Amino acid sequence: MSAINTILKELLEASHLQGVEALLGWDQETYMPEGAGAARSEQISYITGLMHAKLVGEPLTTALEELINLDTGELRIMTLNDRETRQVKEIWRDYRQEAALPAKFVTDLAKHASVSQQAWVRARKDNDFKFFEPFLEKMVQMQKEKAGYLAKGETAYDALLDQFEPEMTSAKVAQLFKELRTRLVPLVQEVQDVKHRVNGSILTKNYDIDKQWDFGMSLLKSIGFDLKKGRQDRSAHPFTTSTHPSDVRTTTRLRENDLKSALLSTLHEGGHALYEQGLPIEEYGNPLGQSISLGIHESQSRMWENLVGLSPSFWRFAYPKLQMKFPDQLRNTDQKQFYSAINRVRPSMIRVEADEATYNLHIMLRFEIEKMLINDDFPVADLPQLWKDKMEEYVGVRPKNDSEGVLQDVHWSFGAFGYFPTYTLGNLYSVQFFNHYKEQVAGSEELFARGDFSALLKWLRENIHSKGRGRKAEELLLEITGQALSAEPFMDYLEEKYRLIYGLS
Amino acid sequence: MSAINTILKELLEASHLQGVEALLGWDQETYMPEGAGAARSEQISYITGLMHAKLVGEPLTTALEELINLDTGELRIMTLNDRETRQVKEIWRDYRQEAALPAKFVTDLAKHASVSQQAWVRARKDNDFKFFEPFLEKMVQMQKEKAGYLAKGETAYDALLDQFEPEMTSAKVAQLFKELRTRLVPLVQEVQDVKHRVNGSILTKNYDIDKQWDFGMSLLKSIGFDLKKGRQDRSAHPFTTSTHPSDVRTTTRLRENDLKSALLSTLHEGGHALYEQGLPIEEYGNPLGQSISLGIHESQSRMWENLVGLSPSFWRFAYPKLQMKFPDQLRNTDQKQFYSAINRVRPSMIRVEADEATYNLHIMLRFEIEKMLINDDFPVADLPQLWKDKMEEYVGVRPKNDSEGVLQDVHWSFGAFGYFPTYTLGNLYSVQFFNHYKEQVAGSEELFARGDFSALLKWLRENIHSKGRGRKAEELLLEITGQALSAEPFMDYLEEKYRLIYGLS
Repeated sequence: MSAINTILKELLEASHLQGVEALLGWDQETYMPEGAGAARSEQISYITGLMHAKLVGEPLTTALEELINLDTGELRIMTLNDRETRQVKEIWRDYRQEAALPAKFVTDLAKHASVSQQAWVRARKDNDFKFFEPFLEKMVQMQKEKAGYLAKGETAYDALLDQFEPEMTSAKVAQLFKELRTRLVPLVQEVQDVKHRVNGSILTKNYDIDKQWDFGMSLLKSIGFDLKKGRQDRSAHPFTTSTHPSDVRTTTRLRENDLKSALLSTLHEGGHALYEQGLPIEEYGNPLGQSISLGIHESQSRMWENLVGLSPSFWRFAYPKLQMKFPDQLRNTDQKQFYSAINRVRPSMIRVEADEATYNLHIMLRFEIEKMLINDDFPVADLPQLWKDKMEEYVGVRPKNDSEGVLQDVHWSFGAFGYFPTYTLGNLYSVQFFNHYKEQVAGSEELFARGDFSALLKWLRENIHSKGRGRKAEELLLEITGQALSAEPFMDYLEEKYRLIYGLS
Repeated sequence: MSAINTILKELLEASHLQGVEALLGWDQETYMPEGAGAARSEQISYITGLMHAKLVGEPLTTALEELINLDTGELRIMTLNDRETRQVKEIWRDYRQEAALPAKFVTDLAKHASVSQQAWVRARKDNDFKFFEPFLEKMVQMQKEKAGYLAKGETAYDALLDQFEPEMTSAKVAQLFKELRTRLVPLVQEVQDVKHRVNGSILTKNYDIDKQWDFGMSLLKSIGFDLKKGRQDRSAHPFTTSTHPSDVRTTTRLRENDLKSALLSTLHEGGHALYEQGLPIEEYGNPLGQSISLGIHESQSRMWENLVGLSPSFWRFAYPKLQMKFPDQLRNTDQKQFYSAINRVRPSMIRVEADEATYNLHIMLRFEIEKMLINDDFPVADLPQLWKDKMEEYVGVRPKNDSEGVLQDVHWSFGAFGYFPTYTLGNLYSVQFFNHYKEQVAGSEELFARGDFSALLKWLRENIHSKGRGRKAEELLLEITGQALSAEPFMDYLEEKYRLIYGLS
C-alpha cells in the first residue's frame, strides 16, 4: 500500500521539522541571548513554512486523495482496519486544517508570533500595554483571518477553539461554565466568609532558590519523569515542549518568597511531560502518536498538580522531606497546617498562581474577553479597562496595573486564542479520570503517602498516554469512565475538599 | 539584476537552515538528554539534506549559470564591481563543492557524523577503542568517498584539507611543518634540559569550579565578547558555534584540579567568538559574511589564548584578580612565578592542554596519521598502536591507554579529516598578524596590563573580522602584513619567550 507509505514518509519529515521548531522555541525561552530575537523569528518562520509546504505538498495530497475524499472525508478504500481508519481520518483532519491556510499567512503568522512574544516579554516587564498594543492588534487581526480560512463551527471563535480541542464548541463550553459557576461562586463566597481559618503566610517566607530547584527535581523523579529522555530548565514562564518523545522538556520559574508557585508549576509541567513521554513511540510521526487535545493534556498536568500535588496523602509523603530541606522556615508548621496553607482559597490577580477554585473564574473571564475580541470586534486598545472591570466582576479583585492585569499571560502574544477554555476542560476531565482511577486501583492514598506514584502513572499510561490520538477527547472519557463530560464531579470534589479544610457545613 | 537576487534568497534560506543545524549541534553537546541521541541524528541529517537540496537546487543553479560558467568559473557578466566579483566567485566555489556530493551521501554522512560522535563520547569514557572502531572505519571510508567526489588537489587528503583551508595543499603544509620542526625540536629539547627551572604544580591545586566559571566569564567580558549576542555554557569538549552573528555560543569545560585548562580554553573559544561576532552583518547569508578559513579562525582563537592570554602583560592585569578569587591557593605565588608556571613546556598526552611549543608536535602527528589513513589505506584497527608509537617519536611520551591516546579528540568522530593542520596554520598566522598589530598600535602591552583589549579588538575587527570572506587566507595575510606565510616569526616568538622564561642562552 504505497499511498500510506508516501504519506507516512512526508509526515515523518514534517515531524523532524516540528521537533526542530520545538527546539528553536525552547531555546528562545531559555538560553537564547537577548540580541538574537530577530534572527530567531526568521528561523522559526522559515521552518514553519517548510513544515506547511510538506503538509500540503503534492506528494502527500496525491497520496491522501487515493485513500479519502479530501472534501467529504469519505474513505475510498474499504479494506482498512480500525487503526488504519482512525489514522487516515486524523491525517485528513490535519490536512484540511493546514490546507485551508495560505502559505504566506502561515509564515507571516509564525514570524509575528515570535516577534510579538518577545514584545510581550518587554511590555510585561515595563508594565507598558501601549508598547504591546500594536503587536496584539495585529495578532487579533491575524487570528480573525485564520478563523476565516478555517471556517469551522458557528462563530469565528469556534474555529479557533477547534484547533486546540477538536469538536468542542463555544456553546458547549459556555454551558459547562454556566454549570460550574452556579456552584463555584457560592463556594468561593462561603470560603471567603471564613477565610481567617487558613493562614498562608508560611508560603511566602524566604526559600532559597537552589533548594527549591532541588526539591522540584526530586518531585519530578518521584512522579516518574524520565530524565534520560527529558530535562527541566528555568524560564520566565513555565512550559513543556517536546522535540521528540525521547526529548521532552519542562521549565519552571523560581522566586525566593514564593514556595508554592515553583512547586506546583513543576508538578503541572511534569504532568504534561509524562503524557508526552508516554505517547506510543511506534506511532511517532503520524497523528496516532500525538496527544488527543489540549483539554486532555491539561487533564494530565492539572491532575498531577492538583489531584496529586494538593492532596493530603501527597503531603504525608512530601512534607517531611520539604521540612528537612527548609528546617528553619517550616519547623513550627505541622503537616496539616501546611496542607491547609497550600490549599488556601484567595481571589488573586494571576491565574497561574490561583487556587483550584478561583482558577476557573480566571478562565471564564478569558473566554468572555476572547469571544468579544474575535467575534465582536472589541477594540484592543480598550482591553486594559475591560480586564480590570471583568476581574472585579468575576474574581472580586482589581489589578493595580497591566502587568498583573491584561499582560499577565503569554498566550495571546503568540496567538493562542481559543486555548484558555482547555484549562478548565482539563480540570473537569482530570477529576472524572481520577475518580475512575481511584475506583479501579485500591489504596491509592496509601501509595501516594509512601511516595509511590507508579500505579497512577501505569494507569494513565495504559488508559490515556499509550492511546495517542485517534479518538476525540469526549470519546476517550466515555471509553474510560462511561461518563459524559460534566462540571459536577469537579464541583463535588472541590466542595468536599474545602468543607474539610475550611470546616464548612 | 534578478539572478543575483534569486541566488541571495536561496542562500539566505540555506543560512536559516545552517543556523538551525548549529543549534541542534550545540544542544546535542550541552543540554540534550542522553536518550535523545538517535532522534537528534535524524533531525540533523534531515536539515543537512534540506540545506544541500537548497544549495544545489534548480533556482540557484539556473541563476548562477547566468553569471558564471559553472565548469570553469569564468564570469559571464563583465559589469560586476570588485565586491560582486568576489561574491560570485565564492558562491561558485561553494556550489562546486556542494554539487560534487550526491544528496544521499550528504545526509548519510551527516547522520553518521552525529551517531559516530555519540559513540566516540562513550568509547572515550570507557577507554574502549574497539567499540568506536567500526564507526571510525565507516567514517574513514566516507571521507575517502568524499575526497573522490571533491577530486581537488594532488591527493585525496588535499581535497579534504581544501574544505577547511581553501587553496592550501598538503605539500605546502608539509614544507611549513618541516621548517617548524627544524627549530622546534631543538627548542623543546633545550627547555627539557632545564625543565626544573619552572614549577607548574600551582596550577593543579584545588580550584572551585564555580569560581573558575566566574573568572572565565569576567575574562570573556574583558576581551569584548558581547553577551547580548552570545553566551557560554559547559560541554565535554569546548567549542564555538554560531546560529547567527547575533547568537554566537562558546563552551568550556572545568576541572577542579586544573586551573589552566578552562582558563585558556575560555580565551581560545572567546577568540573564535569575537571573529564570528565581528563578521559583516550586512553580508549575512552569503559567503562574504563568513569567515575566510579555519586557519584564519584559529589565528583568532590562538591569538587570544596564547599571544594575549599567555603574555606577561595580560597577567599583570589578570593575576591580581585571580589571586583575589583564589587567595588560599595563590597567596604564596607571585605574578612572575605564575606566569612561568602557566607557560611551562612539558611534553604531554593531550593536545588541547599542550603548551605553545609541543602543541605543534601533536598536530604534526595528526597530519601524518591522517594522510596514512586517507591516502595510504592504513588500517583503522592498527591506529592505537600507531598512535602510541608516533607519540613517543614526535612528542616523547607514550600514552598509557587509548582515552588519552587515539581517542582524545572529537574531530575524527564527526569526520573532520584535514582539519588539524589548520591549528598550526592558525599559530603561524596569529604571530604574523600580532607582530604587525604591535607595530601599528603603540603601547599594546600597557593597555593589556590595564585590562584594556579594545585596541586589539578594534584592529582585528577592521583588518580581519569585518572583511568576511572573499579573499584567500594568504591574500589576507599579504594584504595586512606584506608577508607570506612562514614558520619563522612563530619560532622567533617562541624562542624569545622561552629564552626569558627558562633563561636559555
